[in-house]
Amino acid sequence: MVALSNTDLKGGENIESVMAAIGARARAAAGQMALASTEAKNKALVAAAAAIRRESDAILVANRRDIDSVKGKLSESMIDRLALDAKRVEGIAKGLEEVAALPDPVGTSLARWTRPNGLDIERVRVPLGVIGVIYESRPNVTADAGALCLKAGNAAILRGGSESTHSSRAIHACLVEGTKAAGLPADAIQIVPTTDREAVGAMLRMAGVIDVIVPRGGRSLVERVMNEARMPVFAHLEGLCHVYVDRDADLETARKIVLNAKMRRVSVCGAAETLLIDRAIADKALKPILADLIDAGCEVRGDAAVLAADARAVAATESDWTTEYLEPIISARVVDGVAGAIAHINHHGSHHTDSILTENEATAERFLNEIDSGIVLVNASTQFADGGEFGMGAEIGISTGKMHARGPVGVEQLTSYKYKVRGRGQVRP
Amino acid sequence: MVALSNTDLKGGENIESVMAAIGARARAAAGQMALASTEAKNKALVAAAAAIRRESDAILVANRRDIDSVKGKLSESMIDRLALDAKRVEGIAKGLEEVAALPDPVGTSLARWTRPNGLDIERVRVPLGVIGVIYESRPNVTADAGALCLKAGNAAILRGGSESTHSSRAIHACLVEGTKAAGLPADAIQIVPTTDREAVGAMLRMAGVIDVIVPRGGRSLVERVMNEARMPVFAHLEGLCHVYVDRDADLETARKIVLNAKMRRVSVCGAAETLLIDRAIADKALKPILADLIDAGCEVRGDAAVLAADARAVAATESDWTTEYLEPIISARVVDGVAGAIAHINHHGSHHTDSILTENEATAERFLNEIDSGIVLVNASTQFADGGEFGMGAEIGISTGKMHARGPVGVEQLTSYKYKVRGRGQVRP
Repeated sequence: MVALSNTDLKGGENIESVMAAIGARARAAAGQMALASTEAKNKALVAAAAAIRRESDAILVANRRDIDSVKGKLSESMIDRLALDAKRVEGIAKGLEEVAALPDPVGTSLARWTRPNGLDIERVRVPLGVIGVIYESRPNVTADAGALCLKAGNAAILRGGSESTHSSRAIHACLVEGTKAAGLPADAIQIVPTTDREAVGAMLRMAGVIDVIVPRGGRSLVERVMNEARMPVFAHLEGLCHVYVDRDADLETARKIVLNAKMRRVSVCGAAETLLIDRAIADKALKPILADLIDAGCEVRGDAAVLAADARAVAATESDWTTEYLEPIISARVVDGVAGAIAHINHHGSHHTDSILTENEATAERFLNEIDSGIVLVNASTQFADGGEFGMGAEIGISTGKMHARGPVGVEQLTSYKYKVRGRGQVRP
Repeated sequence: MVALSNTDLKGGENIESVMAAIGARARAAAGQMALASTEAKNKALVAAAAAIRRESDAILVANRRDIDSVKGKLSESMIDRLALDAKRVEGIAKGLEEVAALPDPVGTSLARWTRPNGLDIERVRVPLGVIGVIYESRPNVTADAGALCLKAGNAAILRGGSESTHSSRAIHACLVEGTKAAGLPADAIQIVPTTDREAVGAMLRMAGVIDVIVPRGGRSLVERVMNEARMPVFAHLEGLCHVYVDRDADLETARKIVLNAKMRRVSVCGAAETLLIDRAIADKALKPILADLIDAGCEVRGDAAVLAADARAVAATESDWTTEYLEPIISARVVDGVAGAIAHINHHGSHHTDSILTENEATAERFLNEIDSGIVLVNASTQFADGGEFGMGAEIGISTGKMHARGPVGVEQLTSYKYKVRGRGQVRP
């Protein structure tokens, strides 16, 4: 059995100096990781997966300690997020292997051209450097985030939730075993050795050491990080996703997609929160679509047209148009065609993921162009908002910002670029 | 003659509310600009160039007012940056036409693939939104920055230096004439109507309204912006550029490039500040390279080997390895081969632009890979660090950060992307 990371502060250590030391080790590791071969990085991930499988029992024991210490303090759904079983541990190991199987983004030539003076200019992907990840209870984020950062040639500083301390440390020990087995620096993936909330503040002040911070968690965590961080943040603020059923929609397709977009899983960021229906087809389409939702256990909060179409709907208030429920509740209203839908979504939405259902190609293209969201879909469920579903492999989150990374943040988005310029003695006139 | 922008605060207006109104108008304009056709944007730029030419005399009168009010208060070099003449005004008009001639980045398909379930996923360039530009004395930045933001489909909020108020307002009036002539919103390019420094603070707090801030100016401006901005910043912090002369360099090429890298223009960010020479060729190469520099009027601050090679050199102190002189001064030392050069540059440099002079391809590739800078050159002058020289057209600056934009920031870097996903009824299992 591998030793669990020794990650408790010794008496007398202060958090700022502990974090500064972690930062210095991360920067040194980042320098080595930037030059690591694809083979070494993949070997580390595969070895870490093997360690996770071998240490499955120890990880479950650690997880039991975490759960015992929060029983009665956290909701059942929070405890479910925290809990591991043999199947989930196997999922963590598989996830590491999947990241190993992804193409290595580092070194990829993004563009190359020659200038009239003969200078050969090439834009090449390089790692970002040091990535800080601050997350809440899910212990699997330790493995997912660490693996993605490593694959993209970065060093990672992970700060998990206090509830999952023992689980995360046990998983982290397996990641370190992997990096060592591959001859990569043990500090490539570090975990913050204290559950003190002060450590988060210290991380957010480490501009120049940490290149980007990724918060994974609820809105209050993300907002704290956005307010306090002195470095760029890949933030996922809100997924207020819309489905618009256009006059030219196929009704059967629309029923299937609306139900899936809302009810497949209600707690994911790609779950639909508002249904918009073209006034031109409201008479025909509202009844069956609302019935599908309500029969499936969804509460519908609607405008007058919705209330008239199904007596089980309740009246929406203004705040319903801007609420991310993450529950079996949907707001619904009629709008005046695609223009009305675009106006509603760009005004009330969160620029995350929105879908139009229509067989009219011109209408679809207008929606694709005019909706100012990271992901805009035609005739598909908003629940596809996911790096895996996009074929990008695992993701460290979905960014609702427009800078650097928008939408799913996978290994490519965890890189930067540099210019390699090859000359033959050129001087500038 | 066009009216100069009416850009003075009325009595009783406070800066926060004035800036909030500018921000609201910019966001509305950004929504329209995102959908503007390439033709309309180019027409606006060409019409603005024509207005600049027609109003040349008025612009020069405005510039005279600016210069008269700072005479005796600013250095000659600062006044030179501020001063316009007929030739510089023509240069501004030409610059606008050059931006019009650039390819339009908006709508470009960056990648497209189909998933096994048939979903067609396309990553498409879109504008960033609202860009804030805070700059110092050069009035031409008003036109350059405004034009680049417009071409990339953004709205711009410009805040020029107080010294150049009248010049910038006169130029801005021509830009607005251009946008109006093309049927684009007049608020696509706004100028902050007060020289109060409080307006800068107000801009930097407008997160959610301004998507990115670009500071153009000296270190104190850039540092203030980086410290106070609550949104992403494209910062140009420092250009501490190195030239390394390897043992396998061609000496004549090396002499020519070192002299150009340092002395072509000493005040630009791509000017070399430190010369590194391989110990293996120091005996042969130091004397002629140092003589070239010193004969051209450059002060050389060197280590013992440099002092021994030319009696006119003075001793370097530790701080010389981290000083961006922007003057005819260079620090110089010998290093142990390419490994020594890489270690020196990655430790002391500013990750901006560095060049190796060598005929050895393996050595060159090692330098290209291991130097952690935005621009790494082989056998070419560091003074090529420029968007125009890269063939990117005009640039709004050179970013020393790694996020979103690294190196020259041209029209492409002023965009984001979104995903267009086209389906045929897919729901997520």
